[in-house]
Amino acid sequence: MTDSSARGVYVAALTPMNDDLSPNHAAFASHCRWLLASGADGLAVLGTTGEANSFSVDERLALLDALGEAGIPGRALLPGTGTCAIPDTVTLTRKALELGAAGVVMLPPFYYKGVGDDGLFAAYSEVIERVGDDRLRVYFYHFPAQSNVPISHDLIERLLKVYPTAIAGIKDSSGDLSNMLAMCERFPGFGVFAGSEQFLLPVLRAGGAGCISATANVTVAACAEIYRQWQKEQADRLQEGLTAQRLAIQSQALVPALKQIMARHSGDQSWIKIRPPLMPLAAEQAKSLFDALDATGFSLARAA
Amino acid sequence: MTDSSARGVYVAALTPMNDDLSPNHAAFASHCRWLLASGADGLAVLGTTGEANSFSVDERLALLDALGEAGIPGRALLPGTGTCAIPDTVTLTRKALELGAAGVVMLPPFYYKGVGDDGLFAAYSEVIERVGDDRLRVYFYHFPAQSNVPISHDLIERLLKVYPTAIAGIKDSSGDLSNMLAMCERFPGFGVFAGSEQFLLPVLRAGGAGCISATANVTVAACAEIYRQWQKEQADRLQEGLTAQRLAIQSQALVPALKQIMARHSGDQSWIKIRPPLMPLAAEQAKSLFDALDATGFSLARAA
Repeated sequence: MTDSSARGVYVAALTPMNDDLSPNHAAFASHCRWLLASGADGLAVLGTTGEANSFSVDERLALLDALGEAGIPGRALLPGTGTCAIPDTVTLTRKALELGAAGVVMLPPFYYKGVGDDGLFAAYSEVIERVGDDRLRVYFYHFPAQSNVPISHDLIERLLKVYPTAIAGIKDSSGDLSNMLAMCERFPGFGVFAGSEQFLLPVLRAGGAGCISATANVTVAACAEIYRQWQKEQADRLQEGLTAQRLAIQSQALVPALKQIMARHSGDQSWIKIRPPLMPLAAEQAKSLFDALDATGFSLARAA
Repeated sequence: MTDSSARGVYVAALTPMNDDLSPNHAAFASHCRWLLASGADGLAVLGTTGEANSFSVDERLALLDALGEAGIPGRALLPGTGTCAIPDTVTLTRKALELGAAGVVMLPPFYYKGVGDDGLFAAYSEVIERVGDDRLRVYFYHFPAQSNVPISHDLIERLLKVYPTAIAGIKDSSGDLSNMLAMCERFPGFGVFAGSEQFLLPVLRAGGAGCISATANVTVAACAEIYRQWQKEQADRLQEGLTAQRLAIQSQALVPALKQIMARHSGDQSWIKIRPPLMPLAAEQAKSLFDALDATGFSLARAA
């Protein structure tokens, strides 16, 4: 692991929207600023939680530019840039590099299923070659339940051999801790991020890089606390409390649940807006979410 | 069913590529012209078989314009326009209408899984409202194995109630004939297309609209023959022969297999080019494909 590698708590930032469901740039920048002030080491913007795939490429480019213009430091960013189409992935990745991003989180092309490691090797290679920039640091995005296109260890090994600098790590959203630990062991120096703060402590103890998490939009302060104290004896107790909050939130659909929590704690109901096919929680779902969350002693450290 | 509805044999046209994997416009138009001359009633361009999701929106718009400029009649087209992002789906759908397309084949937004009928209802409604054009005819694209986002009969019913003119039919690529027949029965006047010519005859007999098929790129003449003769006694025998060809082709990955067949029968090896994550067949896969296909007595009526 070099000093420049991304490490710590990265938030898969939510994207606030206007009434017409266009992205609200000012609110987005403000949320990102608040996350960094609340202890986030960085921001994995435009991921699953950021509804990136529900935005056009132009909308995503404009969101990235808006962060740059708002003074969010590029080195704090790990934007999601993986799409179904190589030219789009290249365009988004170039924009991330232009902003000075620490790296990009790259979904495999996710429309075709069962393409195998040869197809994914070809796709990632093609993107890396076309981007053609020594600064590129690719974090794979392994999210089998969402993409249905898993990233195998053999694929990682093959790509690491050919692109030892560009291939930097992975966000593992499989929920399978044993997979994360196996990668920490098999690929020294490869930045393994748990896709949920539920696994932050065990992944750090195994030499992993940290977590990139959706729920960190609202648990960022507690995540940061564990990252500061993970080598101390209170770490297990802190992780236990954080895990309870994570599990309470993921009892509902994650992105709508997080927007609902932001709306409640900020008092700004426009947080609830979400692009179809995602839908706001129904009233009884929101109540059930809040009941579960309140039972964990949850509080949002600062209003957004 | 009104007279203007799409009916018959629609080919999910392949997209030929240049050496740099950009779409080859001239070869695309030439292939489309050949398919129509070989008996296709229309062309479902830019679908799964056309590798649409591997192209940027701009590349897709340019491909549609290229067909218009080449004189392919708009009314013969049922372009695929469904993407993960509503603005992209709207842009592509408007272009299809501008060309005078008979309709569009619209995948649901396919990144988020398990979104439920409410989310899909909202997504399709949002697209139809934003397009805001009385000429719009939407054919759902039900392809659970590829999109992992199935189209339920309840969703169809709900959308038909609100948009009785815009909701025109479905391409059912589930491979489940009973699902196709159930829709023919439940939704009179709704254009049910089998997603494979394997089911062309039973779907026509149940009052369905025809087929929209990948393999029709190479079986188009035989498909057209069945569509001409489906009410005659030789129809079952014709369907039997056609089904054998379809099954032989789908013994390999479908899009690479079709490109391989086009290359062999046209003599133009550039047909093999394909965008990652799809990959050309390996030599032994191609041999196995050709052996299986030759055993059915297959011949491509005319060279492309």
